[in-house]
Formats: sequence, C-alpha cells, structure tokens
Amino acid sequence: MALRHIALFRWTDGVTSEQVGEVVDGLSRLPSRIPELRAYTFGPDLGVSDGTYDFGVVADLADEKALTVYREHPDHQAVLAVMRPLIADRASVQIHIADPE
Amino acid sequence: MALRHIALFRWTDGVTSEQVGEVVDGLSRLPSRIPELRAYTFGPDLGVSDGTYDFGVVADLADEKALTVYREHPDHQAVLAVMRPLIADRASVQIHIADPE
Repeated sequence: MALRHIALFRWTDGVTSEQVGEVVDGLSRLPSRIPELRAYTFGPDLGVSDGTYDFGVVADLADEKALTVYREHPDHQAVLAVMRPLIADRASVQIHIADPE
Repeated sequence: MALRHIALFRWTDGVTSEQVGEVVDGLSRLPSRIPELRAYTFGPDLGVSDGTYDFGVVADLADEKALTVYREHPDHQAVLAVMRPLIADRASVQIHIADPE
C-alpha cells in the first residue's frame, strides 16, 4: 500500500492571485526535484461549492519514509516559506492508497 | 481538465472503529454504483503526523456536472446519513486535475 498525503489551506484575508500564483509556481517545480513524488496535484479551489477551503495539495508517495523526504526537501521548504504567511487554516490527512499498477 | 473533489473529516469524540468500518463499507460500494467516479480513494488517517483530521475522501470526476451526480446519488446520500452524526468538522476543496491519459 502506498500513501496519499492531503493538505487543504485557507488563506488569510487579502491574499492576492499573484501570491497564489507564486505558490503554484513553487509547487510546480517540486515533482522534477523530488523523485519520491509519484503523483502531485494541487491548485486553488474552483469555487463550485460553498464553505470550501482555498487551496488543495495531494501528494502520492511510496511510504512514510518518502513522505519525510518530501517534507524535509529544501525545495519544498522553500515553497512552505512562501506559503506560511498566507495560511489562516490547514487541514491534512495521510491515507493508504493502492500501489500503482 | 477534470475535477478532484477532496473532503477531510474530524470525527466527534467516542466514534468507534466499528462506526468507521461502516463508513468504509458504505464508501466501498459507491464506485460500482456511480460510474461518474473515475477514481475514488478514502480511508482513515494513518496517524503518522500530528494535528491531522481523522478521515479523507478523494473523488476524481469529469466535471462539475459529474460532481453533482455523485453528490446527489441515493447510495452516496445513504452513506452520508451514516457519516453525518459522526462528523465534528469537515474541510473540502475542488481542484482541477489533468484528464486521464
């Protein structure tokens, strides 16, 4: 069984689309730099439902060890440094998923 | 672009593993009954990080119309009726993902 890491974010008031774009640009660079990322999807909420958070990230990894590598990777830490001041609230889980076929 | 619906849940105090098992059983039946579900992953948090929510669901769908079909499907509504009394908190987003290859 592989592991799916999910993190949802609510931004603080006044976060601009330019700031979100900077987050997207930063996250976009991670798959080529962190080979532990088997799949990586992220983006702003589409605004099709009420009460949603503002942004979601889903990282598929082999196991807990790969999750730690992802989390501690300097390029990931650099994106987190950009994100941190924007975050009002965060919700996350790690769940089991099937291994890729 | 397809749509990824993500919902994270915190259970109320005292929710048992039997109750969570009932939720898992209910969700497990949905992919065969709701063809709009292109991919469907869910499960309890693995307990490998601090401060996580208790349960996650990720549904991959073609578009907003398919999301509505999923949400309103009677078999989904039946599982929600089981889940609702257990839910202390919920966080969700819908994000764009690439279409399947």
